[in-house]
Amino acid sequence: MHQPVPLEHASRLLNHGPTVLVTSAHGGRRNVMAAAWSMPVEFTPPRIAVVIDKHTFTSELVHASGVFALGLPGPALADLTYTVGSVSGRDLAADGTDKFARFGIETMAGPVLGLPLVAGCSAWLECRLIPEPHAQQAYDTCFAEVVSAQADPRVFAGGRWSLRDDNADLHTLHHLGGGAFAVASRVLQGRVLAGRS
Amino acid sequence: MHQPVPLEHASRLLNHGPTVLVTSAHGGRRNVMAAAWSMPVEFTPPRIAVVIDKHTFTSELVHASGVFALGLPGPALADLTYTVGSVSGRDLAADGTDKFARFGIETMAGPVLGLPLVAGCSAWLECRLIPEPHAQQAYDTCFAEVVSAQADPRVFAGGRWSLRDDNADLHTLHHLGGGAFAVASRVLQGRVLAGRS
Repeated sequence: MHQPVPLEHASRLLNHGPTVLVTSAHGGRRNVMAAAWSMPVEFTPPRIAVVIDKHTFTSELVHASGVFALGLPGPALADLTYTVGSVSGRDLAADGTDKFARFGIETMAGPVLGLPLVAGCSAWLECRLIPEPHAQQAYDTCFAEVVSAQADPRVFAGGRWSLRDDNADLHTLHHLGGGAFAVASRVLQGRVLAGRS
Repeated sequence: MHQPVPLEHASRLLNHGPTVLVTSAHGGRRNVMAAAWSMPVEFTPPRIAVVIDKHTFTSELVHASGVFALGLPGPALADLTYTVGSVSGRDLAADGTDKFARFGIETMAGPVLGLPLVAGCSAWLECRLIPEPHAQQAYDTCFAEVVSAQADPRVFAGGRWSLRDDNADLHTLHHLGGGAFAVASRVLQGRVLAGRS
């Protein structure tokens, strides 16, 4: 299931640091990789930063096309997330295939850019790269503007995540390293302290 | 409790997207704010990026001193984290006080830079700002090199997080917005899929 998320709420999708699936396509080739290193950088216009190693096939496709998409996988996609972060799409492309075919990954087309979005995620963003050659070269950091945002309304609605026992399959993954993921499940509400006068 | 973390493992502390407390000090003034937007950008040398609004008191202190520290709060510090993200240190400084005094925040001195580290966190990093005026101006994004890393060995040891029921007080917070935090508690292990041949 997916519903549009107003762009002014797009930063909320990444605010808590989920691991994402980065999808890209150019010239008839496409790829998907996992990225643990991303963050919002601005609310309005909605902008993000994501680290994409410049030697990856994804980096090649992103810089050729100027666009990419993000998907936020849940527990059911943990094996897939670890797998696409461990296998190179360039090797598969040389064999005339890709990770989508190899691992049976279903996609839907992004609403603005038409990029492949990984089905079964909790949320998705389409992004237009902001050319920043120095940040890309020095830090592998890609700044981008979010041009579409969607979420599964069972877990994100009204601009807020609602992580409950009955939607545990849609909770976000947070990569600890080595394929171990923390799942954002337990929620607590902070309150503002009065402090000493 | 705190033990040194080898710098080659520093990225693991931020890999899963925790919300952090940013501490800073310059010229006899000091401050602490919450930041949900940070990420590693490089393993070696260990480098990170963190978004610090250029209008904040923290930004003033960080750019004057060239250094800052991060602490990773757990559930016991959720109220404090939300509070220091909601109150301006500049207002308190005008009254001759600061958030540490106002909210009874205990600190220890960072081992390399001597910065105030918030006691009771799960992990801490000291960072030296890498001057990147364009990224700071355009995206409020501060790149920095990690010069010290420490963690509470009850929750992070041997380069890995170990999130268990018996150390729930040290699990990291991930800000969903509006003071609601997801706690990184449940862990699952992904495996690499064979795929279709």
